[in-house]
Amino acid sequence: MDRLEKQMSFIIEVDKLKAIFRQSLLADGSRHENDAEHSWHMALMAVVLSEYAPQDTDILRSVKMILIHDLVEIYAGDTYLYDIKGNEDKEARETAAADKIFSLLPDKQADEIKALWYEFEECRTKESGFANTLDRLQPVMLNYLTKGRMWQKHGVNSNMVIKKAYRLMENADDRIKAYFLKIIDESVKKGYIADGGKQ
Amino acid sequence: MDRLEKQMSFIIEVDKLKAIFRQSLLADGSRHENDAEHSWHMALMAVVLSEYAPQDTDILRSVKMILIHDLVEIYAGDTYLYDIKGNEDKEARETAAADKIFSLLPDKQADEIKALWYEFEECRTKESGFANTLDRLQPVMLNYLTKGRMWQKHGVNSNMVIKKAYRLMENADDRIKAYFLKIIDESVKKGYIADGGKQ
Repeated sequence: MDRLEKQMSFIIEVDKLKAIFRQSLLADGSRHENDAEHSWHMALMAVVLSEYAPQDTDILRSVKMILIHDLVEIYAGDTYLYDIKGNEDKEARETAAADKIFSLLPDKQADEIKALWYEFEECRTKESGFANTLDRLQPVMLNYLTKGRMWQKHGVNSNMVIKKAYRLMENADDRIKAYFLKIIDESVKKGYIADGGKQ
Repeated sequence: MDRLEKQMSFIIEVDKLKAIFRQSLLADGSRHENDAEHSWHMALMAVVLSEYAPQDTDILRSVKMILIHDLVEIYAGDTYLYDIKGNEDKEARETAAADKIFSLLPDKQADEIKALWYEFEECRTKESGFANTLDRLQPVMLNYLTKGRMWQKHGVNSNMVIKKAYRLMENADDRIKAYFLKIIDESVKKGYIADGGKQ
């Protein structure tokens, strides 16, 4: 098959990301957000907040990761961050999904994009660290704006949110970390989320 | 107000883009697409199809434009490409909307992002040309996949699609142009769109 035709077949297949719904609600609480919307929002955050990325971060590389980071969910579904059972086989399900979705692309490009997905998942580079920081911050922001409805529904407490974010945000800018912790703190104060203590 | 707080107020406000619905249907025809999904899809296309951009195109700059190109529609609404009346005052409505949305950002950053939006609209640089090419290609692809339902609904013929794309895709790669024309051609053959001739 012609190279461009292969690339377009990938571009057509990923349209399905618009039908993968997340736990997060939109800021106005009217409905759940889907992965395509979440990815756009995160990518725009990467642009607007690029000054908080570690020095010499390749922002385009972070944005690429953000744009593709949830594509595996087209086949593997969205696994809620606090779903213990679902997270047990998440890696296996998502790795199989990555093989399937990225193999639609021409070989070398498939390898490149798949490598970006692994880099995001491993979260060991500046670029993936910045992308993962935004992946933690964006839903926390939406949860705060919707008065913690989804936190309450799933019995999530403040300590669980902070623990899940901790490793991924390790190298984040102090101002972003402080902003993140301030949202959680406000959420506890306003009764949006249960106080999980500091242990 | 603190700089990060200002940036976050912008990031929260743009969540409304997820509620701006377009004429295009999703590839499976199940519902209309919104601007956030469209922007994500275009941004991913810019990454996957970057080899077809003009030589030395700054892809990050194109992606930035794509991520923000429809934000004005939060206040100005989506104006259908073939809506003659709606397009008469589109520029005035969107310019006012740009002043409103981008002014949420810190001053210098507001100017930078607004300049990117103007650059996209004017379509005179390599980066904006590439972004605009994708803005024409993405909905045509969705229209083809949904058997031209929206073209038929709005009485759009093949010549109207080609004419609207022509100036914006002037400097597009020949393979992309050929692919675009092939979709239109196939659409005419399959009866998805009325044949508007070649005049």
